[in-house]
This record gives sequence, structure tokens and C-alpha cells, in this order.
Amino acid sequence: MERILESFRKQIFMQTLGATLLTAGEGEARISCDIDDSHRQQHGFVHAGVLASILDSACGYAALSKMPEDSEVVSVEFKISLLRPCKASTIIARGSVLRTGKTLVFTEGTVTDGEERESFATMTATMYRVRPKH
Amino acid sequence: MERILESFRKQIFMQTLGATLLTAGEGEARISCDIDDSHRQQHGFVHAGVLASILDSACGYAALSKMPEDSEVVSVEFKISLLRPCKASTIIARGSVLRTGKTLVFTEGTVTDGEERESFATMTATMYRVRPKH
Amino acid sequence: MERILESFRKQIFMQTLGATLLTAGEGEARISCDIDDSHRQQHGFVHAGVLASILDSACGYAALSKMPEDSEVVSVEFKISLLRPCKASTIIARGSVLRTGKTLVFTEGTVTDGEERESFATMTATMYRVRPKH
Amino acid sequence: MERILESFRKQIFMQTLGATLLTAGEGEARISCDIDDSHRQQHGFVHAGVLASILDSACGYAALSKMPEDSEVVSVEFKISLLRPCKASTIIARGSVLRTGKTLVFTEGTVTDGEERESFATMTATMYRVRPKH
Repeated sequence: MERILESFRKQIFMQTLGATLLTAGEGEARISCDIDDSHRQQHGFVHAGVLASILDSACGYAALSKMPEDSEVVSVEFKISLLRPCKASTIIARGSVLRTGKTLVFTEGTVTDGEERESFATMTATMYRVRPKH
Repeated sequence: MERILESFRKQIFMQTLGATLLTAGEGEARISCDIDDSHRQQHGFVHAGVLASILDSACGYAALSKMPEDSEVVSVEFKISLLRPCKASTIIARGSVLRTGKTLVFTEGTVTDGEERESFATMTATMYRVRPKH
Repeated sequence: MERILESFRKQIFMQTLGATLLTAGEGEARISCDIDDSHRQQHGFVHAGVLASILDSACGYAALSKMPEDSEVVSVEFKISLLRPCKASTIIARGSVLRTGKTLVFTEGTVTDGEERESFATMTATMYRVRPKH
Repeated sequence: MERILESFRKQIFMQTLGATLLTAGEGEARISCDIDDSHRQQHGFVHAGVLASILDSACGYAALSKMPEDSEVVSVEFKISLLRPCKASTIIARGSVLRTGKTLVFTEGTVTDGEERESFATMTATMYRVRPKH
């Protein structure tokens, strides 16, 4: 968890969004974000880009939690389906690992309200393991 | 263009990112964003969520530019492929319409550097036309 | 189920693949396929297109099972992640509805071996409801 | 081209579909398929799985054409957008490389009619390079 928290602190864009890493470990990570006007699109809903951003990070940290200490992870691609408009005051993105390979990690994630009940969006994301250069 | 500019101004998340609508019309829209630390992930690159956010908006406004005056557009889903790490100081997202149906619009988009040369990410997005309620 | 079986029988491509509709109802559908050489790619694994084809049909019938009698369904888009090479002798695709809207249905699906244990691929698909013309 | 033709001949599923490799080289590949009832879904259109299958193979061979002699390629994931119903008597899938990395290749593709005019579907696909074991 400490290694992942340190990486999360360096993701300055997560601070720009006001996002917090709740939990990370054993192939799962959860990120929360309190919504204010700065996150909205033209109809007052949370912008799809906000949902995608915290889902991508949650999926990335889910992947990182399954990797050896000295690994880093970058996103290869992701797809998000926007199930319904999101007006929640708090959102939580949960990412989970579907399958870990040597180089690639397949993940999926969901964004819900603060009670983790209603689902607003779902993602599948492919992550790439970057090995350190010695 | 005026209608699209007005919608863009209401997308407060675009202001959070510091994004500017450059052009919109005839099935294409371009959005630029000057990059600073607020957009970065843990390795100093532009966060994939930033690229996805401005691509999604560019695809949405490309779609809106092909619709009757009183329409609105929302994203159904999108997929982004992250071709290479992005360290550009300015990025430009260009969205284009592939096919307009009665209800759905298929779009694609690319994020490049400020000279619109090197491509960092590519997206396909499905947009949904919302008709006004009278 | 009878309406869905009738539609499935008209999907001649499912016969080309040798696929069988196992169950359909309440937002879920399962299709099985016995694998032979006709389904293989150059390394002897099941071709990704076979997995995608039966997943797409399973997601489509999952969606159709939640719709009024006179509806039809067509695929808008889908994404498949190929978690591992597939050498199973029988595969089963299960599609499920994530969210039903007025026009669109969001679905997801998984292909497993005949015991529905090991997962080879996962899909998210958007379906479009076609209303009958009177 | 010879190496790719040999691989294509081993993709028995391409024979099941009746598909032919037209061209392959320099990051592009084209596959054609004459349509008959065996490819159809319940409304008489070409099944989305057929379009996805030949697009996936076209993208794979586009990627392979950019790789060293002893490489093999497998699909990581793909997304297809179904722009319009396909009733063409012949279809041609063209895959192209967007970006070649050390391990991953990003590709895109389009399925058109036999004159390569009207586009029925568009795909983005990520390919993985498999190095030979010595």
C-alpha cells in the first residue's frame, strides 16, 4: 500500500480532480472523489472524462498491486461505457485485475456513488508492466 | 459555432483542465490544452484521463455540429488507445464524425502535439442525440 | 425463450460456427460451441473472431430478453479483451445486461470453457433496440 | 508476403469464412470475403462477428508485416463500431498499423464493400508480438 500511495501522490492530476486513494492491494484499488462544479459538463452531470480518469487510475493501481516491488504500470488502452448520467455528490471508482500476464494486465472497473450502490460507468483497461532500467 | 461555444463554456470541467475550443463545424471539432503539472501522472507524462477528457469533448462537439439546432449530445461509450507517452507542452484533440444516424453518431479522434504532428492517442466514441422536451 | 430461439435459428452464422443457444431469459443468455479445426487460427488456438462472434450473439440475446415482444436488437459496438489463448474443446459465452435504457442496452459477457470455469475473453457491448415498423 | 500467406493458410477459420488475403506489407493488410447465407444474422445482414473476424485478422497481418521475420502476433483486444447494417455481396477488411512498439502494435481497420467505398465497421486493435523460443 505504501508504494502505491507514494505513486498516487505523484499523480498530480488526481489532486487536480480532488481524488483520494481509499484502498489498494491484492488486485483491487478504490479511489473516491467529492464532486463539485469543477467536474461538470454542460448539463450539470459529472463529465465522462472525470469518470474515465479515476477509473483508469483505479485499474492501474489494481494492476500495480499484483506486480513485483520494482515495477511500474502504464495504460495501453481503455474503454468506458456510460450507463447513466451521474449526479452523485461523491463517486467511487473500483478497479480489479481480471488476469495478470508477464507483461500485460487485464483489468475492469466500475464507478458508483459514495455508497457503492448505483453504477454510473464501467471500464475495461489493459495495463503494461514497465520494468526498471538498471 | 456560437451554439457550440456556449455549450463548451458550460462544460466547467474543460475550464478545470484549462482547455480551449479552437474550431467546431461540419462534423469536426478541435480542442487545445496547455499542459502544466496539474495534468501529470506519476512519471511526469500527461495523464491518460486528460487525453480522454478532451478527446471525448472534441468527439461530442464534432457530433453536435452535425445535428439540428435544438439537439444535445451525450457520450454512450468511448475507447482510447495510448500510442506513446505524452510530454508535449500543448496538446490538441481533434474529433471527427464517421457516421450520423437518427439517434447515434459514430466519431473518432486523435490527440497530437501543438503542431498536430505526433499522435499520442486515438479514440472511437459513440454519441447519443438527446432531443429537447417540449 | 421461444421468440429468442426463433431469432437464433435465423442467425445462420451461428450454424456456420456450430453454436447452440443454451439458455436465454431475464437479461442473460448462454451460447455453447464445440471446437474443431474449423475455428482455429495459425497457432491452433480458437480464433478471436469466433470468441467475439458468440459473445456478441450472447450479449444481443441477453438484451433482447429484457425487451418488449415486438422489439429487435442490433449491435452498436463491442470490445473484447483476450485474456489468454483458448484451447478448450467446448466454449460457452455468457452475456448479461448491465443496464437497459429506452433505446440502448449495455451488456457484458465472458467466454469460458465447457465447465464455465476458466475465462478466455471478456466483452462489453452496446445494443440498440429496433422498434417494429407498422 | 510469403511468410504472411503461410500464416494465413494456417488460420483455418479464415477458410471457414471463405476469406482471402489480398495484400499484406508495409504495415497494411487487406482481406476479402464473398458473402453468402452462411455469414448472415437474423435480419439477413452480415453478422458483426464476421466483420470483426476478418478485421481482426487484417489488423494482425498489418502488424506482422512490420515485425522481424521470426515474430508471431496475437490479439490483445479489439473494439469494433458497427456504422451501418452490411448487405454487401463482397466485403474487404483493411488493417493498418498506427504505431509499432517493442512488444505492442496499435492498429486500426475498416470493412467496406468490394469497391472499398462504403464503410460498414471500424476497428481499433492492440496486437502483441510473440518472440520465438529457441
